[in-house]
Amino acid sequence: MEADSQTGKEKYAADISSIREAHERIKSLVHRTPVLSSESLNAISGRLLYFKCECFQKGGAFKFRGASNAVFSLDGTDASKGVITHSSGNHAAALALAANLRGIPAYIVIPKNAPTCKVENVKRYGGQIIWSEASMKSREEIANKVWQETGAILIHPYNDGRILSGQGTISLELLEQAPQIDTLIVPISGGGLISGVALAAKSINPAIRILAAEPKGADDAAQSKAAGRIITLPETNTIADGLRAFLGDFTWPVVRDLVEDVITVEDSEIVKAMKLFFEILKVVVEPSGAIGLAAVLSDAFQKNPAWKDCKHIGIVISGGNVDLGVLWKSLEK
Amino acid sequence: MEADSQTGKEKYAADISSIREAHERIKSLVHRTPVLSSESLNAISGRLLYFKCECFQKGGAFKFRGASNAVFSLDGTDASKGVITHSSGNHAAALALAANLRGIPAYIVIPKNAPTCKVENVKRYGGQIIWSEASMKSREEIANKVWQETGAILIHPYNDGRILSGQGTISLELLEQAPQIDTLIVPISGGGLISGVALAAKSINPAIRILAAEPKGADDAAQSKAAGRIITLPETNTIADGLRAFLGDFTWPVVRDLVEDVITVEDSEIVKAMKLFFEILKVVVEPSGAIGLAAVLSDAFQKNPAWKDCKHIGIVISGGNVDLGVLWKSLEK
Repeated sequence: MEADSQTGKEKYAADISSIREAHERIKSLVHRTPVLSSESLNAISGRLLYFKCECFQKGGAFKFRGASNAVFSLDGTDASKGVITHSSGNHAAALALAANLRGIPAYIVIPKNAPTCKVENVKRYGGQIIWSEASMKSREEIANKVWQETGAILIHPYNDGRILSGQGTISLELLEQAPQIDTLIVPISGGGLISGVALAAKSINPAIRILAAEPKGADDAAQSKAAGRIITLPETNTIADGLRAFLGDFTWPVVRDLVEDVITVEDSEIVKAMKLFFEILKVVVEPSGAIGLAAVLSDAFQKNPAWKDCKHIGIVISGGNVDLGVLWKSLEK
Repeated sequence: MEADSQTGKEKYAADISSIREAHERIKSLVHRTPVLSSESLNAISGRLLYFKCECFQKGGAFKFRGASNAVFSLDGTDASKGVITHSSGNHAAALALAANLRGIPAYIVIPKNAPTCKVENVKRYGGQIIWSEASMKSREEIANKVWQETGAILIHPYNDGRILSGQGTISLELLEQAPQIDTLIVPISGGGLISGVALAAKSINPAIRILAAEPKGADDAAQSKAAGRIITLPETNTIADGLRAFLGDFTWPVVRDLVEDVITVEDSEIVKAMKLFFEILKVVVEPSGAIGLAAVLSDAFQKNPAWKDCKHIGIVISGGNVDLGVLWKSLEK
């Protein structure tokens, strides 16, 4: 992070200008996803909930916003070498799709434990798959090797200003679709989504509250907020396969400054929220995408007096890529 | 049907005026449901598809449009007696919800084979359930008995002008959301949905084509169109629990005159379409709601030269009330 010499304030990796530029760049490429609401879910939560359905985004997740912004930001020379990333799934598919639309190669390093439907999406969009072990170390090593061989441009899943700016376009749409929103609840993993969303939303409405939702089995963001510095974990254990990454140096300052609190939930609460999405909202949501609803229904939120006057709550459903068999088995329990 | 003395033309049970009146009456009550599209499904079908997602309507189905129009059309004296209907599910829940909103009782006769989730919806909205056998005869007998006891106003699931007018509001929204649509594919059962949709759409754009989609195991509409008169069947056999009713004298004239063709599909095609909705569109669709996609993918549609120039196709997803276990078991096969 470089300091702004005019204001003395630290600048973040993205701001409302870069987010508006991203919006201009990608608006003809992305779906303007609908905002759904349900009186039944309002009754259950005791609040008015506005669900921003990024599960309906191209590739089935918000990730296409950042990926398309990154790919279409490249100059011709860089673009011609192609792009590369490592990702457990949604960013991988999104980057493959964005590269496909620009007509350049995408090299995708995928850990062996990625969900089948996410791997299928990468294949559908023409990405070139290179397998790695599940660990972040293996993912990074193999990505580095492919980078050395191809010269392709690395597009990190979240620790990248272009990615933050693309994800931030969610707030531009959502606060136009439901300007009454006073609180946003956003899943947190590497922090790309919540950073972009927070930077845009706070610029449009400085009074808006930003809350993160995180699985207890991968609560590095909650621990980082408590410690005042980035904490990483030796291992993670959660059904939410999209929420196992750790904060990066581009996302941490935004999370530190603009996110009011991190609400952690059990996997059982995530599964319950998935079921509510399926049965009441009629939307297919993956575990990571269901965590916002799980958070608003949790005791941690409901019983905290600090959130008592959060009335109009925007919840980002981050994605819908879930294998049907996995969903059914988790709900059957 | 009465004849119009001015034009000599037969009048239908609804028209664009009654549909616009319905829209004014119910627009603050119903969800303006989004229209989703998917490049993957466009590629599979070879057309541009616009999915009108009535699965996101209140009660999880389009039925709330007609039911709320009927209930809020009643004068105070009639309304005070309450309303009654017999229905396998979605109309039942919709009527219970509409009555609940108006603060009047709803007596709902439900056949014993109705899907659990639909019965749960009736309970959730405060409907008073009276059980019947599965047959239409038993449903009608028991409804008649309750009517004699209560004096409640019978709101038929489809053979009613107020119902047709309410369902027709779908076209007002859809042709505003996607005016380029040249063809509509609509599930057909008793004909209330397709009649309302056709009357409104043909009035807005007389060149628009209206195609019905029907299960082979309940193909009374296809047989009726072929015979030129209402045909009913001794029994029906289909997974699409919402498509087992037969045309009525209010819906048949519209289907006879305005529906170009009835495309019949196998249950296996319906299940395949449900799976595509789940995996690609991320939307929970019940069997009856999935039949429009099944129809557009069927050989009957794809190989018929008459439909070769249907390019922009609006498909009504009629509902999303499906038991998760049932869905999983049908997809596993």
